[in-house]
Amino acid sequence: MTALLEAFNQTTYPVTGHSKYTVQILLEAFRDMDGSVESDVYGNGKLIEDFQRKMADFLGKESAVFFPSGTMAQQIALRIWSDELGNKKVAYHPLCHLEIHEKDGLKELHHLEPILLADKERLITLDDVVNMKENIFCLLLELPQREIGGQLPSFAELEAIASHCRERGIKLHLDGARLFEILPYYGKSAAEVCALFDSVYVSFYKGIGGIAGAILAGGEAFTEQSKIWKRRHGGDLISLYPYIVSSDYYFEQRVGKMGHYHESAVELAKLYNECAGLKTNPEFPVSNMFHVHAAIPKDKLEPIFLALYKETGIGLTRYINVVNDSLSAYEVSLGDRFDKIPKAQLKEAFDLLKQKLQAIVAE
Amino acid sequence: MTALLEAFNQTTYPVTGHSKYTVQILLEAFRDMDGSVESDVYGNGKLIEDFQRKMADFLGKESAVFFPSGTMAQQIALRIWSDELGNKKVAYHPLCHLEIHEKDGLKELHHLEPILLADKERLITLDDVVNMKENIFCLLLELPQREIGGQLPSFAELEAIASHCRERGIKLHLDGARLFEILPYYGKSAAEVCALFDSVYVSFYKGIGGIAGAILAGGEAFTEQSKIWKRRHGGDLISLYPYIVSSDYYFEQRVGKMGHYHESAVELAKLYNECAGLKTNPEFPVSNMFHVHAAIPKDKLEPIFLALYKETGIGLTRYINVVNDSLSAYEVSLGDRFDKIPKAQLKEAFDLLKQKLQAIVAE
Repeated sequence: MTALLEAFNQTTYPVTGHSKYTVQILLEAFRDMDGSVESDVYGNGKLIEDFQRKMADFLGKESAVFFPSGTMAQQIALRIWSDELGNKKVAYHPLCHLEIHEKDGLKELHHLEPILLADKERLITLDDVVNMKENIFCLLLELPQREIGGQLPSFAELEAIASHCRERGIKLHLDGARLFEILPYYGKSAAEVCALFDSVYVSFYKGIGGIAGAILAGGEAFTEQSKIWKRRHGGDLISLYPYIVSSDYYFEQRVGKMGHYHESAVELAKLYNECAGLKTNPEFPVSNMFHVHAAIPKDKLEPIFLALYKETGIGLTRYINVVNDSLSAYEVSLGDRFDKIPKAQLKEAFDLLKQKLQAIVAE
Repeated sequence: MTALLEAFNQTTYPVTGHSKYTVQILLEAFRDMDGSVESDVYGNGKLIEDFQRKMADFLGKESAVFFPSGTMAQQIALRIWSDELGNKKVAYHPLCHLEIHEKDGLKELHHLEPILLADKERLITLDDVVNMKENIFCLLLELPQREIGGQLPSFAELEAIASHCRERGIKLHLDGARLFEILPYYGKSAAEVCALFDSVYVSFYKGIGGIAGAILAGGEAFTEQSKIWKRRHGGDLISLYPYIVSSDYYFEQRVGKMGHYHESAVELAKLYNECAGLKTNPEFPVSNMFHVHAAIPKDKLEPIFLALYKETGIGLTRYINVVNDSLSAYEVSLGDRFDKIPKAQLKEAFDLLKQKLQAIVAE
């Protein structure tokens, strides 16, 4: 465990997330659970079928399938569309989860060929899609684009991209790992956003704060095929109920709080942007998340944070990434913890941070 | 739900398994769990690392990795050995799990080419392996061979097969879904059996009775590669602790009872083999399991069982499979429930079954 994480864990008021990542998350979800409830069995049974139906309805799709992970769900979605259209080229952002976090599973297991659209610093635009020379079977859009701080296209641009894909017979897949988190900003229901997409993945352990698990939704023919691939991937477990029960429990608790988490992110980003040497990306968050970019190297920023946590009891981040010799960065996602921090104490902590940073930036 | 399953569930003394397959299995495993225990995080952390170390030691292997499923673990094991030896041919039994229960994941995801050894009715023998013409990278042996009632080669034959493979540079992989269950019959430790194999998979929801989950064990270089493939398959979940905690809990409870479960199976098989028209495969079980073969079609056997369950309160099986117009069959696995049945009542139920069957067989 790093010194910063240890210090963060010891603060009275950790700022990010919902809670510590402990077994308590499971214990709470199962506290009032009746032991006689029957397990799902290899994808069948009331427990899994009810949750799948509920999520299909919420997302406005014909059908939905519960998966242990989004990694599995999304590779499978792309493979199904690839096989259907007889084409191996899929377009996505250069910082797409499938490109940077999955050890090339999409290529190694499914032999698909990604076309990287846009560049690493910005969102995919309608122009990128229209001007693409390659003949692709699918465009994958991640809303919000996590690796650039959780940015979003305008809903109008999204609609234009969707129209273009529909006209060209290109499938549109939504990486909705943080879909619930952006609905308040768009002012749309999940179904209104998902209507633009042929297939949709959502996650239950980001803003929802469950243990793990994902839903893949789309038309019935699509989801039926996804069950076969789920078996092939080794994801059709005899029992997925530990993840399903906790996903449902925290979905009920938190899906209505996403607007509040968004407001928290806007409030906190403003405090960050008043600090010399720090800025958030995006400047005005559109979900519960943003990135903090520091024009200060990690080895100078870390001691400041260590001291700040100790002096104020407020923990801003559990880690800092090195960007290069002079820049560092980290991600912030807000949840239930933010409300527990007395506002005056948070303000004082940022005032102290400003002083400490000014001393460094002035050096 | 079928009528037979419903009747089985209503009996006072269901014969097979440990308990109903309900959420209670999780609640019991977590009852005394401290909520402050930290989750595993993407394969790291004390909770997962301790269990992996414990299982590596139990199996006598250098290293072990926890997987959500055996389907995932075994495909990955074969892929690693295939890549290492630059050969795509793997030999296994025609009723191997990978051949009949995984929707061809091994072929569709990994493009490996199975060579089916032996025939469906019997075990793979040393002769089968020695006389094989194909050049294979790996032989997969399932101990016991589940789909033929849980049969086992002699330990001497197993050793001879292992020597032959070692001499030829063929990797030997153990499908040990029911490895714990056969150790009393062999009179060997898990490590003594596993020493014959390059890689080993074991399961935690068969005789152990956990929720789900598997361990893949072998040398460190092998298990390190398996972690990369686990990520690719979508099995490297942020948290696997619901399965790890329950696997460990029921492993501790039941690994020492496997000899007793074996004795139960021998006792029950004897009762079955005294019934006209029924016989067990194998005649003398070598683990907690066997198959019952009936020279009676399902549509005649089912009403007999329905009546028997009602009259005696003893449930023999939850399902019957059609073999053909005159034969039917089902699998029996024994666990904690068998001990709860008063012996006299069990004997009476079988006496009644004999009478009912004689009436049918005499027709």
